[in-house]
Amino acid sequence: MTYCVGIKLKAGLVFLSDSRTNAGVDHISTFRKMIVYERPGDRFMVMLTAGNLSISQSVREVLQTEQLTDADGEPLTIWNARSMFDAARVLGQAVRRVYDRDGESLRQAGVEFNISMIFGGQIHGEGMRLFNVYSAGNFIEATAETPYFQIGESKYGKPVLDRVLTPNTSLDEAAKCALVSMDSTMKSNLSVGAPLDLVVYEADRLATDRVVCIDMGNPYYRMLHESWGQKLREAFDSLPPPAWGDEKTDTPLRVAQSLLVPLRKITRAEEKLI
Amino acid sequence: MTYCVGIKLKAGLVFLSDSRTNAGVDHISTFRKMIVYERPGDRFMVMLTAGNLSISQSVREVLQTEQLTDADGEPLTIWNARSMFDAARVLGQAVRRVYDRDGESLRQAGVEFNISMIFGGQIHGEGMRLFNVYSAGNFIEATAETPYFQIGESKYGKPVLDRVLTPNTSLDEAAKCALVSMDSTMKSNLSVGAPLDLVVYEADRLATDRVVCIDMGNPYYRMLHESWGQKLREAFDSLPPPAWGDEKTDTPLRVAQSLLVPLRKITRAEEKLI
Repeated sequence: MTYCVGIKLKAGLVFLSDSRTNAGVDHISTFRKMIVYERPGDRFMVMLTAGNLSISQSVREVLQTEQLTDADGEPLTIWNARSMFDAARVLGQAVRRVYDRDGESLRQAGVEFNISMIFGGQIHGEGMRLFNVYSAGNFIEATAETPYFQIGESKYGKPVLDRVLTPNTSLDEAAKCALVSMDSTMKSNLSVGAPLDLVVYEADRLATDRVVCIDMGNPYYRMLHESWGQKLREAFDSLPPPAWGDEKTDTPLRVAQSLLVPLRKITRAEEKLI
Repeated sequence: MTYCVGIKLKAGLVFLSDSRTNAGVDHISTFRKMIVYERPGDRFMVMLTAGNLSISQSVREVLQTEQLTDADGEPLTIWNARSMFDAARVLGQAVRRVYDRDGESLRQAGVEFNISMIFGGQIHGEGMRLFNVYSAGNFIEATAETPYFQIGESKYGKPVLDRVLTPNTSLDEAAKCALVSMDSTMKSNLSVGAPLDLVVYEADRLATDRVVCIDMGNPYYRMLHESWGQKLREAFDSLPPPAWGDEKTDTPLRVAQSLLVPLRKITRAEEKLI
């Protein structure tokens, strides 16, 4: 599997991906799932992919080497698109081209046409935009209410994103949050693994040099991994235990029975037939 | 959906379930997913169910009202089973009886025969045991290495269980941990909802009075929900931000380039065809 997250803030964009690919537990490899398209001063785009690796690689290749057209037959590429919306349409077209070629054969082999992408960036003349592109080539865009997208094994790492991220979060904080989210995911799921690719883009720069590949020996990641585990544990330990008996407490677990519908306990006496 | 967790410790057992059932977002109801079977001094058992509600309810009913037999044709019930293993076999039989009756019709209607259960407890004469029963009626047992089972929407709440639970965890700590795990799940997934049912069983008691139904107004749960969110945030804030530039730090995010395989950046110049 895969875990990737893309975040859109007022201050910029953050992208993080793992690099583990597996087909069953005995066929595990490392493949990068992030690609950066940059023409400094004009456009900056990042694509993260999850799903079937052969489809992901084909989509990248088509995107980079083949001529795609818009509905009017005009050539449209991620390099001449005038908006990120148009660039996302190009990506959708690339997905559909791969589907036209491989979809039927995959179906016959019982393999789902399974791919999803996070695609975001900025093109000179408009603001930053972040999209989630699906296997049908359609897509949705992140808004202030939902400032992030995840693809792949998204559930383990979702709670911390929900608790921390808002459009006003700083870039450093969001990068830290993405790494904590990744750390929780890697702790609970073997199919997500290092090295990690992290890109941080500052709004309106139209280029970035904040690109880093993080392996498990990375000092910052190692500190984060250890400190987060320890601090989480301290936070957990500092919460009072539930009070069952006559302990004096402002926060009883058992309150007046009238407020509750008691759970049904079945005892032998109630049994009719058995 | 559903989220249920069952935990087996040296000190006893902890069971927690939500009560939301949904078929699409516009058909949401409250159904209890926990049932307690108790004959004080002789046996204490708890069953949690996830999956299709009609199947879950049928399995409960069969278990409580119909005559099941073991492979030799001898009557076997959860009340006369001599071990929890045998009681789990009875439950598996009940699942298979429901499958025999409803499986084919469900298949024709395009509905998966989808059910999973956590079943645990203690029968006089042996230790506590905890099982995860699948829709084929087969099951696995928790061991010291894996002291808990989850069913339903399990991923959001897994990281905290992985960080806290060991066989030596105390009952109060495990109950607190299960509630924090549930809280994270409810925060990230609408299909899991209150009230919650919590049962804590102390080893060798063969009965319990630690049974509580928790709604969102419950003082302990409310405290846990607020404090955990706040402490998590404090823990997060106390971690240093990533260092990108020349900041003095012991834990740099960017280390000597030689250690890293740099990410490929595609720039306009590299493009051949587009």
